[in-house]
Amino acid sequence: MTRGKKTNLSKLGEFGLIDRLTGNLPGNSKVVVKGIGDDCAVYKSSKDRYQIITTDALVEDVHFTLANHPPRLLGRKSLAVSLSDIAAMGGTPRTAVISLGIPKSLPLAFLDRFYEGIHSICEEFNICIAGGDTVRSPKGFWVSLTLIGEVRKNRLFVRSGAKAGHAIMVTGTLGDSALGLKLLSKKKSPLKASKAARKFLETRHLDPVPRLEFARSLAASKIRVSSMIDISDGLEQDLGHICRQSNKGADLDLTTIPESRELKILCKNNDLDNNPFCLTGGEDYELLFTIPGEDVKKLVNITLKVGVPVTRIGRMTSEKGVIRLLKENESPQIRKTSSGFDHFR
Amino acid sequence: MTRGKKTNLSKLGEFGLIDRLTGNLPGNSKVVVKGIGDDCAVYKSSKDRYQIITTDALVEDVHFTLANHPPRLLGRKSLAVSLSDIAAMGGTPRTAVISLGIPKSLPLAFLDRFYEGIHSICEEFNICIAGGDTVRSPKGFWVSLTLIGEVRKNRLFVRSGAKAGHAIMVTGTLGDSALGLKLLSKKKSPLKASKAARKFLETRHLDPVPRLEFARSLAASKIRVSSMIDISDGLEQDLGHICRQSNKGADLDLTTIPESRELKILCKNNDLDNNPFCLTGGEDYELLFTIPGEDVKKLVNITLKVGVPVTRIGRMTSEKGVIRLLKENESPQIRKTSSGFDHFR
Repeated sequence: MTRGKKTNLSKLGEFGLIDRLTGNLPGNSKVVVKGIGDDCAVYKSSKDRYQIITTDALVEDVHFTLANHPPRLLGRKSLAVSLSDIAAMGGTPRTAVISLGIPKSLPLAFLDRFYEGIHSICEEFNICIAGGDTVRSPKGFWVSLTLIGEVRKNRLFVRSGAKAGHAIMVTGTLGDSALGLKLLSKKKSPLKASKAARKFLETRHLDPVPRLEFARSLAASKIRVSSMIDISDGLEQDLGHICRQSNKGADLDLTTIPESRELKILCKNNDLDNNPFCLTGGEDYELLFTIPGEDVKKLVNITLKVGVPVTRIGRMTSEKGVIRLLKENESPQIRKTSSGFDHFR
Repeated sequence: MTRGKKTNLSKLGEFGLIDRLTGNLPGNSKVVVKGIGDDCAVYKSSKDRYQIITTDALVEDVHFTLANHPPRLLGRKSLAVSLSDIAAMGGTPRTAVISLGIPKSLPLAFLDRFYEGIHSICEEFNICIAGGDTVRSPKGFWVSLTLIGEVRKNRLFVRSGAKAGHAIMVTGTLGDSALGLKLLSKKKSPLKASKAARKFLETRHLDPVPRLEFARSLAASKIRVSSMIDISDGLEQDLGHICRQSNKGADLDLTTIPESRELKILCKNNDLDNNPFCLTGGEDYELLFTIPGEDVKKLVNITLKVGVPVTRIGRMTSEKGVIRLLKENESPQIRKTSSGFDHFR
């Protein structure tokens, strides 16, 4: 292979790196239905069902700090992020394997609490830890978790099916997690916030709720979901994935982005702009999906049943790769590519 | 939970830690057939087949050093160790997911070569990389890989079925990998060795061949395999796993342990004792299994077909947890528990 000598990690970025490394990998289309590039990989296991697999790694001082993240909640979150990926495909989680990188100095009490968290979320979502590996880590704690689930063949939701004109929908409220992280890391010069608001926003970051029940109800309904993703890298970046993989664009109506009361008040009292939290903040683990406009009203039943709000925030367009941010009485902002968290930039 | 304050990682050891952490995890017996404690976890996916899952992590300066391990071979080995686990259950590998922890300073050329290795072993064994995660690692490169395979329900091989009197069999030769590692790390005061012997032994460490074809032939035969494991932690420790999980003991005839010509000559010329390499060396990735004595002769056909030798090295006994090492004209050494590599001791 001839490759430029000057290319480096930060120039490529995370997604460039993934493309470069995986571009030449041999496929196995007889078994694998969806490979790299969606929330989960998908492969055939029986006539009417697919197996879906997702893997995520959380690294100390990259994804979390031990000072901010209580070990029990870290255990819960290690699984929650993967459960959210399974939800994004419309699936049901079954079993997980966990590898841990453990520094010799890590207190055993930390691991006990971490596993209490794993235990509690496994019970909550009826998952079984089927195995794992524990290895010594020369520096810093890390966890790498692979979760396997199942989905009915005809109700597999992917990123690539959005149609122009379809409504863009999102569950819950956006930006809470990013603002919660800001609260946690601003311990020295704290933001003005009520105790309750602080608790709410920090919990949204530390202990996110995967929208599995909502996703399952959606899969069980007749609503024609044309694409779905979970918001882990921020609304703009994850909507960008849907646009790219569906060869479409999107008009996003900023006035409709669902925000929690807590976020609104805290931003107002501290003179902060809400938009960066909601658009590029990341780690909301809400579901972003597209459906035909006429199906929107059918979502009410799911909201009532599951107790999770869902909001229409825009529509898909035929302008490939162009996201327009619409605001009342202002000209739209055009975003060619999405921004968000990138490990190597 | 009330727990002794003084317990620490090195006191517990790797297997003690795993028991402690996983003892309270909720099970899900409807789906999971075999959980923690075998080479792979096993769960039901269709009427006549199981899915099997294995996960392994390799960490820089714990499992390998960049100085000794060429990146292409490291890519191959990342998968080979998991392929060996699938082999040990009698399965066929299908698809893998890989998480990488990447230090910012790591040269891209390293990752390119690493993925060339992944690519080559995927082609060789007809596996598909279905996804993964790339994250920044504050210090040191690491890879965490999960491999999923399939096995016919009635030909699943586990660690727990060995019977007293059954023959203990092993593929290939033992100790090569450990001696290869010694050669690699003794660069300053090198051992006496021919170039060819050095190459052979180092390759056995750097680029192990998972015994998938042998395992598949065994699964396709009528041979009554009562237990199987792959030798990753050393013969004694892995035979110990079979003994413990089968509630049996073992007599190991040291004079029959299969050794390569290269190992024999090199040990002799450098005045080294062969036994530590063969008994506790680890990373051989050969298969260790038990069968009724009358089935031993049936193995010839598989050896001829696959080209992998298989040797009878002892027999299972009813003395729970006792491994006796038998040597000509000497009284047997009794080993109560197995020794071998432990991450936290």
